[in-house]
Amino acid sequence: MYDEKGQRYLDCINNVAHVGHCHPDVVKAGAQQMEQLNTNSRFLHDNLVLYAQKLQATLPSKLSVCYFVNSGSEANDLALRLAWQYTGHKDIITLENAYHGHVSSLIDISPYKFHQLSDAEHNPSVHVAPSPDVYRGKYRADHPDPATAYADEVKNIIEKVDKKGAAIRRSTCCTGAKHVREAGGVFIADEVQVGFGRVGSHFWAFQLQGDDFVPDIVTMGKPIGNGHPMSCVVTTTEVAEAFMSTGMEYFNTFGGNPVSCAIGLAVLDVIVKDDLQGNAVRVGRYLVSQLEKQKEKHSLIGDIRGCGLFVGVELVRDRVKLTPAAAEAQEVIYKLKEQHILLSADGPHRNVLKFKPPMCFSAEDVDEVVQKIDHILTELEDALGLKLHSVSDKENEGGKRKVGVTTASCLMQSDEKKCKCFPTFSSALNIIFNSFS
Amino acid sequence: MYDEKGQRYLDCINNVAHVGHCHPDVVKAGAQQMEQLNTNSRFLHDNLVLYAQKLQATLPSKLSVCYFVNSGSEANDLALRLAWQYTGHKDIITLENAYHGHVSSLIDISPYKFHQLSDAEHNPSVHVAPSPDVYRGKYRADHPDPATAYADEVKNIIEKVDKKGAAIRRSTCCTGAKHVREAGGVFIADEVQVGFGRVGSHFWAFQLQGDDFVPDIVTMGKPIGNGHPMSCVVTTTEVAEAFMSTGMEYFNTFGGNPVSCAIGLAVLDVIVKDDLQGNAVRVGRYLVSQLEKQKEKHSLIGDIRGCGLFVGVELVRDRVKLTPAAAEAQEVIYKLKEQHILLSADGPHRNVLKFKPPMCFSAEDVDEVVQKIDHILTELEDALGLKLHSVSDKENEGGKRKVGVTTASCLMQSDEKKCKCFPTFSSALNIIFNSFS
Repeated sequence: MYDEKGQRYLDCINNVAHVGHCHPDVVKAGAQQMEQLNTNSRFLHDNLVLYAQKLQATLPSKLSVCYFVNSGSEANDLALRLAWQYTGHKDIITLENAYHGHVSSLIDISPYKFHQLSDAEHNPSVHVAPSPDVYRGKYRADHPDPATAYADEVKNIIEKVDKKGAAIRRSTCCTGAKHVREAGGVFIADEVQVGFGRVGSHFWAFQLQGDDFVPDIVTMGKPIGNGHPMSCVVTTTEVAEAFMSTGMEYFNTFGGNPVSCAIGLAVLDVIVKDDLQGNAVRVGRYLVSQLEKQKEKHSLIGDIRGCGLFVGVELVRDRVKLTPAAAEAQEVIYKLKEQHILLSADGPHRNVLKFKPPMCFSAEDVDEVVQKIDHILTELEDALGLKLHSVSDKENEGGKRKVGVTTASCLMQSDEKKCKCFPTFSSALNIIFNSFS
Repeated sequence: MYDEKGQRYLDCINNVAHVGHCHPDVVKAGAQQMEQLNTNSRFLHDNLVLYAQKLQATLPSKLSVCYFVNSGSEANDLALRLAWQYTGHKDIITLENAYHGHVSSLIDISPYKFHQLSDAEHNPSVHVAPSPDVYRGKYRADHPDPATAYADEVKNIIEKVDKKGAAIRRSTCCTGAKHVREAGGVFIADEVQVGFGRVGSHFWAFQLQGDDFVPDIVTMGKPIGNGHPMSCVVTTTEVAEAFMSTGMEYFNTFGGNPVSCAIGLAVLDVIVKDDLQGNAVRVGRYLVSQLEKQKEKHSLIGDIRGCGLFVGVELVRDRVKLTPAAAEAQEVIYKLKEQHILLSADGPHRNVLKFKPPMCFSAEDVDEVVQKIDHILTELEDALGLKLHSVSDKENEGGKRKVGVTTASCLMQSDEKKCKCFPTFSSALNIIFNSFS
């Protein structure tokens, strides 16, 4: 990215510009179709069919009905309508600190947002499960079986809701999926932040759950059009038929217009042509390995986690107490910006440095940003009088948690089982594991 | 428009392609900005400021805060959130047959949609006022004062809601605005269908209410980007400050991106450069005058109404009983399509032919479509054995209603007072008069 004076910035945050800012193939596809025809969705156009086919080819065959809309928020709102209609109930299980969008129905299911409201305003149909965070969450890495413990939380919510008379609930978190399905609920996978190859090893983050895991509804957004306002909901014929049976037509003026579809097609083509998913694996792994080296040097780095090119670095003042280093994270962001690097901090405590760069991010880019983080952390730690060795020692005494490279690099080495238990960032969207809350 | 075989169609329905399909200025603006930069709304860009300023210049100065979003539905949902927050209550008055969008909060306030649901599913905070339709509505042209009668309906709703303890309601229909304001409610003008000069005499349909009438919130959509997914909510500083005071940041990933703003700017420029608002006055007036001539010939035409290039022709089997001629309307649409003209039917009875062409629609285009409608109606009436004179006579006996040219042409001759009382189409969006429900 370049600012208004032509200054170059290294962009570590624009996950919307998925295949790279102003990728010529995407620009060309959009411009050509704009010149030719752009109608609303009452008109059929080949692009709509071609795009639906190409998108479906990336998904399990059961997910075969596409609804094209304009934003992740529209997608998640439609997903709720589909789920409500299919199950006949309004109960929703969502994760702590989740964010699913800005329209009013989604504020209701976004603790990241609704925690700012008074209790009276909370929707009684919305049930919040703890986020499966093994670093700072309810069940941590030293727990014998955090996956089951988090899943049981979902099970408990289901049982409690059942007692109140509501038989079915739907969207929920990863490991709880089985319980939700057993209770007749549906599983909504919110891929708005993490879809389209960002996790590297898979095209969709829900696929980290295993090849046999198929959500009932998948929502997509941000990266889908490389910045163009578009999004999509994909579901099964069963869910779509239940929705159609209401007789209420779903109409969306801009959704699925030929320009959006041309752009969507170009994005899918570029992901394959430029091997961006492979790049996410390779550069993501390199990024984590370089960050792990920094963790060995800097006591402020408490945890490194993520998949592919979606990586979080949690800063703490104390590796045992996990005191969030929010001011320090902000300082890193500001200092990096002065040095022409864009990075952001996130998480409920705003102490997680969040890497979600365009997917063409390179190893050289990793070197540039990590080197500068190294300098900034060194200065910060000098100023704060923090030293590593004593902290590291305490950490090793503190529990069963392994130190350094081991923990997170196994995450990056396509260790899917590990990856499953490491959702991380806040403000990312989640109803499901690929939450990264 | 051209189909996949290159066949030309005369387009009488694409109000989204506001300044004409693929207008070169709009395509160029979009393509150039796509090549240069397209970021999400966390980044400031001159286009955002320039566009907000240019849009604001078309509005009363009190409406000074813009929120950029991606669709009319997102805009109306945000308008609800603003209204709820500002007034502290959730009651909403909406009009019969209104349609305000497809997200779940808007289905609640869209009788056009929610009439398809069971009573149990209706939102108790939503109150439906009769649509001020003087042709087929509760108070008609033969009523001594339909405007006051419709306004009193709103007043009655407000009093009833007050008794239930809810002190404030907001969005409502035209003539009831005074009552809503007095009760501390806010007035939302939904301009998604009718804004940007379509009504001809004014840039915004709410301005038909008089120069001193200023809504609290205005929502925009469809024509704003000539097909590009974008929309806007404009409100007062009072409403915006109340919303900000919650501390909940409003963030929209795609809203206000530099490409959308570049396109929005180009659309505003073309409206002025090509005098499309003036064209809407002139061609709209000519369209109505030509349709009135058809009404003198064809008993199937019951009513002609609208403003500028938003015109409806209501077909009836009987001008006294007003029996909706839905099948005949459908037949007209199909026959026109065979002859390469696109027109649609709408209204709660699907018997209103709805003209909302791109704003570059010409007098020659009017001649082409009206001539073909003439032939089709002649054939239909021959087949049905309908004759005009007897019907016309009955109509004159039936009430005080004037016949033919007089009624609707006065509408078109910028007779705003009349125009106010003739909202018409269904499926158009409305919380306010510019409903055209």
